[in-house]
Amino acid sequence: MYRTHTCGELRITDIDKEVSLAGWVQAVRKFGSITFLDLRDRYGITQLLFGEDLNKVLDNDPPGREFVLQVTGRVSERSNKNAQISTGDIEIAVSSFKILNRSAVPPFSIQDDTDGGDDLRMKYRFLDLRRNTLKKNLELRYAVNRSARNYLHEHHFMDIETPFLIRSTPEGARDFVVPSRMNPGQFYALPQSPQTFKQLLMVSGYDRYYQVVKCFRDEDLRADRQPEFTQIDCEMAFVEQEDILVMFEGLIRQIFKEVKGITYSGEVERMTWEDAMWTYGNDKPDIRFGMKLCNLRFPSHTFTGKPSITSLIEGANFPVFDTAETVIAIAVPGCSEYTRKQTDELTEWVKRPQIGMKGLVFIKCNADGTYKSSAEKFYSEERLKSIAESAGAIAGDLVLILAGAEEKTRKAMSELRLEMGRRLALRKEDEFRLLWVLDFPLFEYAEDDNRWVARHHPFTSPKPSDIDTMIGNDPVITNPAEYLKHPYANIKANAYDMVLNGNEIGGGSIRIYQRELQEKMFEALGMDKAEQQHKFGFLLGAFEYGAPPHGGIAFGFDRLCAILGGSESIRDFIAFPKNNSGRDVMIDAPSTIDEKQFTELQIRLNLK
Amino acid sequence: MYRTHTCGELRITDIDKEVSLAGWVQAVRKFGSITFLDLRDRYGITQLLFGEDLNKVLDNDPPGREFVLQVTGRVSERSNKNAQISTGDIEIAVSSFKILNRSAVPPFSIQDDTDGGDDLRMKYRFLDLRRNTLKKNLELRYAVNRSARNYLHEHHFMDIETPFLIRSTPEGARDFVVPSRMNPGQFYALPQSPQTFKQLLMVSGYDRYYQVVKCFRDEDLRADRQPEFTQIDCEMAFVEQEDILVMFEGLIRQIFKEVKGITYSGEVERMTWEDAMWTYGNDKPDIRFGMKLCNLRFPSHTFTGKPSITSLIEGANFPVFDTAETVIAIAVPGCSEYTRKQTDELTEWVKRPQIGMKGLVFIKCNADGTYKSSAEKFYSEERLKSIAESAGAIAGDLVLILAGAEEKTRKAMSELRLEMGRRLALRKEDEFRLLWVLDFPLFEYAEDDNRWVARHHPFTSPKPSDIDTMIGNDPVITNPAEYLKHPYANIKANAYDMVLNGNEIGGGSIRIYQRELQEKMFEALGMDKAEQQHKFGFLLGAFEYGAPPHGGIAFGFDRLCAILGGSESIRDFIAFPKNNSGRDVMIDAPSTIDEKQFTELQIRLNLK
Repeated sequence: MYRTHTCGELRITDIDKEVSLAGWVQAVRKFGSITFLDLRDRYGITQLLFGEDLNKVLDNDPPGREFVLQVTGRVSERSNKNAQISTGDIEIAVSSFKILNRSAVPPFSIQDDTDGGDDLRMKYRFLDLRRNTLKKNLELRYAVNRSARNYLHEHHFMDIETPFLIRSTPEGARDFVVPSRMNPGQFYALPQSPQTFKQLLMVSGYDRYYQVVKCFRDEDLRADRQPEFTQIDCEMAFVEQEDILVMFEGLIRQIFKEVKGITYSGEVERMTWEDAMWTYGNDKPDIRFGMKLCNLRFPSHTFTGKPSITSLIEGANFPVFDTAETVIAIAVPGCSEYTRKQTDELTEWVKRPQIGMKGLVFIKCNADGTYKSSAEKFYSEERLKSIAESAGAIAGDLVLILAGAEEKTRKAMSELRLEMGRRLALRKEDEFRLLWVLDFPLFEYAEDDNRWVARHHPFTSPKPSDIDTMIGNDPVITNPAEYLKHPYANIKANAYDMVLNGNEIGGGSIRIYQRELQEKMFEALGMDKAEQQHKFGFLLGAFEYGAPPHGGIAFGFDRLCAILGGSESIRDFIAFPKNNSGRDVMIDAPSTIDEKQFTELQIRLNLK
Repeated sequence: MYRTHTCGELRITDIDKEVSLAGWVQAVRKFGSITFLDLRDRYGITQLLFGEDLNKVLDNDPPGREFVLQVTGRVSERSNKNAQISTGDIEIAVSSFKILNRSAVPPFSIQDDTDGGDDLRMKYRFLDLRRNTLKKNLELRYAVNRSARNYLHEHHFMDIETPFLIRSTPEGARDFVVPSRMNPGQFYALPQSPQTFKQLLMVSGYDRYYQVVKCFRDEDLRADRQPEFTQIDCEMAFVEQEDILVMFEGLIRQIFKEVKGITYSGEVERMTWEDAMWTYGNDKPDIRFGMKLCNLRFPSHTFTGKPSITSLIEGANFPVFDTAETVIAIAVPGCSEYTRKQTDELTEWVKRPQIGMKGLVFIKCNADGTYKSSAEKFYSEERLKSIAESAGAIAGDLVLILAGAEEKTRKAMSELRLEMGRRLALRKEDEFRLLWVLDFPLFEYAEDDNRWVARHHPFTSPKPSDIDTMIGNDPVITNPAEYLKHPYANIKANAYDMVLNGNEIGGGSIRIYQRELQEKMFEALGMDKAEQQHKFGFLLGAFEYGAPPHGGIAFGFDRLCAILGGSESIRDFIAFPKNNSGRDVMIDAPSTIDEKQFTELQIRLNLK
């Protein structure tokens, strides 16, 4: 036993106890013939006092930062108390000590505000993990893990492990594959999710399943994506959508309470996918602030039952609006006094390649009731007023308008709204707003192949009211130009996403559990019977032996932790993350392998 | 909501409640105009009563076994109660029902004593998992998981996830590798264990780590081995061996108590590796029964300080004993009256290729005090008596003696002892005996390469008293014939295995945390500086920045569950296991992959 206590444990009530501590040297302060040394471990920092005798020993071989020390001594009251730390009332009058290990000078300082750059900190991740910031992140991650497990256990969910070496059935993302030595020429795939296995567990009668489980996707990595990531994966049998929503609102409420000390009171809002796209331009809207989209023009077929207010912008011979498929406005509160420089900067912002718009039209709703606009050559003040009012602007607001092709413009306006929210500090780190987005389209149209693709995944059930439409119609699209008129275009999915502060933290669906419907789904995705049988024969087979109605959800654990930790970056919440090239720069992986491994696996390289 | 209650929930106190249940048809019993139907779910079985009206509906479309039903009705008291099941006092008088899904006739019966063979049950694993036996196994597995997590949490361990896509450093077993598309020509490896990562976490100051984690080994599969398996993986900093032993005895005690309701009282026995080999011929002895080995002859150098009793067998001109390196006896209690047929059968048993001995010598210690032996031509009754007594035999016992090369004979005797224990029912399923095996040799000698290999793994520390021997000597073996005289041959490891009923359920060690010692270890294993740096530079680097003393253990979760469940087969405790060819026959994995996948990964097949 190297220690009797941790460095975060001793209090004024421990005075005069003889104790042993072990930890790392955080700081050394020499005052003449005595030395104060801060000893750090996972639990805190304790001040050590080396008196005159030991001071000489220290001088002979001074312990530097990050040395590992073991000390024995007596707990004493500090004359100069430190209210900042839990052990701040005491110090240890050291009677003996031992250097357990030495440390070279770290390449960056082990402090909250470190001087290390990203690359250096990734290379020396084992040192970066010593910093309080990262430690708190991993502690939060563990607390979320624990809280989720406890909630699910209390609700009779069982953790059942599903296999990692499975079959490659590339549908959505790319699989990582693993050559099988014992079955030459064949490969396993690493799971993108335990989807089919958890469905089989429902067929097996394990009606409440969960797993906190690693998943794998071989995709080009955008910022904040990792090739391996963790899901809280859940499935339930004999449930409808409402049962799932209630159960997993409860899960998130419990996590809020146990991990953040926040009682999430009030209903979790619900919004259809169509309303989310209409109102926020985005299927994962941040509802902590308004600035809702005003759809001045939009293409027919895009939204159903939404009012047209195109008249507000028509007939002014303003080519920017007249030639655009879509025109959308937002009212930014209190920004009517933006200078030319500021509006120019916003225009540049939307013209950046990431956003890709051609320009930005603005209307300033001045405090005196007048209106100024970059389009005032085309629109009378009266018309500007109508447009601004339709966007919900009041005096003092700045209306921003984008015009262009539907998809791009809506996405750009969504980004602009979020950016303005950020600039106006409306996206508060300590405010949490949950939202269910519902009623997604079941299919998307794939122009290249002139066929349907599953928006969620091929196991998602249509709404009960759409099942007949799906079964009763041929999925083939005979007239590509009019694919929107195909009955499949309007089929809604029994799917739901949970959105927190503008981030999708979880998503799921009620699943298909009838063989006939599942076959129809595969057929719609362009799979013939032979391919269906080859890839998913086991699932179709399982549906023949009494599959119960079921559904589930998976939460992105890394992202959930990051959001709860008030961060944008999931990487800071993963102990050993990979960089954007999928590399672990600390261990230098991936790497070459031996010739012997190639021989045994009966594969070779075929480099371009 | 498909149900108000589960099929295991309703009691006599629920009489007259209007309820809904959903589940699977277990059995249908028709009696004239009424029908009884047993409805099954994860929680139990409830009897349904269909009266005259509904009976006609049933007759039109009779639900078969494994159909999924939803029923509504009133809870009634049964006239014919069934004390075997928790719901046996009641039945549901069904007022309406719905067939939620149909089922083909299952390929085997969903019962405890199923008629399905192994292959069929593996193919239809989703049906096999419906059987009560497998359900209880998975429930036990979850209970062990939960109990372990709770214990570790209470003792301040943190679950920290380590990566699955790591670097291939084939030392012991073969790695599974994963081609990296983003880094062509390079490969990840799947972890054989999180060993180096958990050590880095100790360097990072997370002084108590755990994970219930999948690990991967690409080895030829013997019975009861899986290419992917689960470990309860733990590591602690600032500890010595004793701290680890106490902590993890506690873990197993808690699991015994919470999962099996067994208070494991008394000390956990401890035994050196040498004593285990001497007394049981095995480093994971089953100590539920005696039948200890009597070492009549053994080669010098094999054991230190053990008494020689070779004189008992010498000078009789019995070639079988005289030419053997090793002669070992055991006394099998109460078997002196074995017939010729029975001793012949035992002789055949040890001559099987799996055991590989040339024959078996026996001494019958008759109840009347006489001795009979297959070697009585060579040994007087007096000498037979001495041999039998040295093996601990009393009147009525049967002494079995094997002779041959040391390693083979010791192993064979260990197997024979276990076999006799099994035949005499001394290995009781409901008796649990824990044992720590300690003081393993640090190195084994690899004849082919004339070098040392790490018995445990290259990160295991020698005993503190052996560190100087290791640092101070050149690991090179100049005289292969006398490798046992090399100072490294006697270095003991700071390692420990936990053994339960003759199975290694966990193993670990105190680790090396000093760069110099780690380098010496790598050097002993035949790695030059460049290779050390290439493969383990990150770990050696980490040891430069204040690595604390640390150690840990990993439990084989699958095996632990199997033993606690009273089974020999881990496969029955894994939801979706692979067969002995590493195949999942249900999903038919591994499988071929698409040409596109080969192209993207820049690899191709190179089949022999």
